[in-house]
Amino acid sequence: MEQRVRHFQEELDALQARLLEMGGLAEEEVRLAVKALVERDSAVVDHVIRGDAPLNSLHIEIDNRCFTLLALHQPMAADLRTIVSAVKINTDLERVGDLAVNIAEAARRYAQHPPVKRLIDIPQMARIAQSMLRDALDAFVRRDTDLAQKVLNEDDKLDALKTQIFRELLTYMLQDPATIEPALDLILVSRHLERIGDHATNIAEDVIFIVSARDVRHHAADQGR
Amino acid sequence: MEQRVRHFQEELDALQARLLEMGGLAEEEVRLAVKALVERDSAVVDHVIRGDAPLNSLHIEIDNRCFTLLALHQPMAADLRTIVSAVKINTDLERVGDLAVNIAEAARRYAQHPPVKRLIDIPQMARIAQSMLRDALDAFVRRDTDLAQKVLNEDDKLDALKTQIFRELLTYMLQDPATIEPALDLILVSRHLERIGDHATNIAEDVIFIVSARDVRHHAADQGR
Repeated sequence: MEQRVRHFQEELDALQARLLEMGGLAEEEVRLAVKALVERDSAVVDHVIRGDAPLNSLHIEIDNRCFTLLALHQPMAADLRTIVSAVKINTDLERVGDLAVNIAEAARRYAQHPPVKRLIDIPQMARIAQSMLRDALDAFVRRDTDLAQKVLNEDDKLDALKTQIFRELLTYMLQDPATIEPALDLILVSRHLERIGDHATNIAEDVIFIVSARDVRHHAADQGR
Repeated sequence: MEQRVRHFQEELDALQARLLEMGGLAEEEVRLAVKALVERDSAVVDHVIRGDAPLNSLHIEIDNRCFTLLALHQPMAADLRTIVSAVKINTDLERVGDLAVNIAEAARRYAQHPPVKRLIDIPQMARIAQSMLRDALDAFVRRDTDLAQKVLNEDDKLDALKTQIFRELLTYMLQDPATIEPALDLILVSRHLERIGDHATNIAEDVIFIVSARDVRHHAADQGR
């Protein structure tokens, strides 16, 4: 039994390490996708699109690890919540990878038009979303509800930037129809980044649920608008 | 032991019944949100926004049912896959409710401008997304992989309509700047509907996974673009 408990703990640690690895890859995909947009670099676009495959492989591997842990060890209480949350976090990270690909595809289209403006707010949104992701996963591994709460609070910043970007781009579009098509892609990118923040928020809510068995969803500020 | 097995089966049936109920509510939210958009009816907008609360309650209740089933009955194989999939499906349905609220909010903004055009394709997208949701949940309850596969195939229709709507609205925006702001909301609505289809696709993929323990994700056509 002792050995079995040790084995379970090792497997749980390995699961968390893989989730951290996946989080690191997803975050890097987001960083590169926005770099491709800012630098109008089609090689980076291709890099991001190729980079989705390892994320998809990890997604399947992590799901399998979760099912194996549930089936073989029949965990209870906090361990059970951890593993089921890992299934959800795995899904969130895979979607972040998909959103990075969406941003890269928008970057490719955007580069076919003259730049609408110097991009300041979108890279700022990307930095916030990336740090939310990183903090949410750190909070998961360290069971740190304070850090998780910090992630939940950051979401408002993304929302404010998204609104600001929308207003500014709308002004450009109204003044000059030539900006409509590229400005639309910038608006979409800002929404993809907002959704990446939502996925970080989901992870942070899972952390609070694991630690306290308290469900903070539907009490936090509404998300996903 | 006999009684325990029967109890487990009853609990599993109850879980599925609650998921179906939640799916019905989510589908109705989508239907009403698009009705609010088409009919420019702010009372229906309010109805959709209020309608999210019961979905959120069901979301928490279903999650709790899943954890209880996992903790008390330590299910194996297909039952384990069913319950973990139920956790995921529950998340998908809750997001569908959020997206319906997003559509309702866009409908409210849209009604503040003259109509851009007669809405044909957006209601069509909504009907497809609703039927995908319904079929995906039916496939889940009946373990019907053929029906699940049909849902996966439908996704291309949504994607084609989304692209068509985008091109048409872009033409309007280029011709008349007064249409830019309302047309943007229609574009957002078409993307929300596409994402609702993605959630139905997620559910259909879970069904195939439950039945065959075969992972069809990352093999189906890319989604979420």
